[in-house]
Amino acid sequence: MGVTGSVREVFADPESSQRHADLRELADRAGVAWHVVGSEVVAAMSQTVHPQGMVARCGFVDVTLADLVDRRPRLVAVCADIRDPGNAGSVLRCADAAGAEGVVFAGDTVDPYNPKAVRSSVGSLFHLDVVIETETAATIETLRAGGMRVVAAEGSAELDLDTADDHGVLDGPTAWLFGNEAWGLPDAVRGLADVSVRVPIHGRAESLNLAAAAAVCLYASARAQRNASR
Amino acid sequence: MGVTGSVREVFADPESSQRHADLRELADRAGVAWHVVGSEVVAAMSQTVHPQGMVARCGFVDVTLADLVDRRPRLVAVCADIRDPGNAGSVLRCADAAGAEGVVFAGDTVDPYNPKAVRSSVGSLFHLDVVIETETAATIETLRAGGMRVVAAEGSAELDLDTADDHGVLDGPTAWLFGNEAWGLPDAVRGLADVSVRVPIHGRAESLNLAAAAAVCLYASARAQRNASR
Repeated sequence: MGVTGSVREVFADPESSQRHADLRELADRAGVAWHVVGSEVVAAMSQTVHPQGMVARCGFVDVTLADLVDRRPRLVAVCADIRDPGNAGSVLRCADAAGAEGVVFAGDTVDPYNPKAVRSSVGSLFHLDVVIETETAATIETLRAGGMRVVAAEGSAELDLDTADDHGVLDGPTAWLFGNEAWGLPDAVRGLADVSVRVPIHGRAESLNLAAAAAVCLYASARAQRNASR
Repeated sequence: MGVTGSVREVFADPESSQRHADLRELADRAGVAWHVVGSEVVAAMSQTVHPQGMVARCGFVDVTLADLVDRRPRLVAVCADIRDPGNAGSVLRCADAAGAEGVVFAGDTVDPYNPKAVRSSVGSLFHLDVVIETETAATIETLRAGGMRVVAAEGSAELDLDTADDHGVLDGPTAWLFGNEAWGLPDAVRGLADVSVRVPIHGRAESLNLAAAAAVCLYASARAQRNASR
């Protein structure tokens, strides 16, 4: 699913319309209406302090969990009960960069279509499969039934990421499970993963923030999978 | 340098003073004045939307670059011209977690004492050596003279992080150089590093955000150094 296929119409101020003639041509060819409007209109639509002169109205892009599993993904991130839209966008961007096929927003999690989440995903919302699922436990079961090892990122886990990597834990198809920024994984979900892994803390920080932990975990998986398939 | 040694006085509302009796005892023993004030006073001092009922006035904690180099550090992060206080705090937290001895804020970089930077460092500002240096080129020279390999994180570098790791590039004392969120390393600094390395992008994201890239790079160094010293 690319961004082009999701765009319904574009609103741009005169300056942006001129500066991005290439985009306008793309829109024309795709039959997407391009409305030249005053910059105050774009500002009112864009909900950001420094609007960039252009807003696209897009269709929803999320797919079902079954669609994602049918693709036999090798790397998936599951965000359970996360609350910060900036984190949601950062995990999307980072999962995309690490080569994940999908991100599941599970349980009582911030809406990935929240404007701040969309902006901080910097386009990655349109690059991979986005799934919204209310039942986190069922999500875990479905991913496991689809052949994935479910690995929970937990600060208190005994097994650290480097040791897990050394022992081949990350070599196969993996679904990473990330919990809430403040209290981690929901109680109902703790223990449902196949294994829990912590990012080692070598210094005196109490923890990593969610986006940084996700980056380290997802990149460890990408490396392990590539090394295993060599 | 611990947070305890830097605190000059504490302002707390009655509820926080009661809830954190342990902290108050610590302060008493250290001879740090504890002022019980109205919660509206704490709110006015704390510059945040959801103040936590307590504010400490601290001394500056930064040290000179010479102080840091004298410790013969094995892992250092240098932020050159970065602008976002949240990123500054995130890099501090992440460098601390990865076991770095110091973070250098070089060139025209956001003040690490910016309230948002302090908050997003979640205490790590007090855990490692913080250095503020205006001359980035001189900083690179000094770190190199101190026995560190200076590795620039650059999205356009030919060498990717995994290959660098495989070839032992990260095994020794390393100073990572991170540039501005939008335009990367300053021109005057590009090319001064010993080697440039990119975090591989496996999917369709154009790049990683600064804090995520720093997390991946610093943790790759921590792992490489530990493996090399086994």
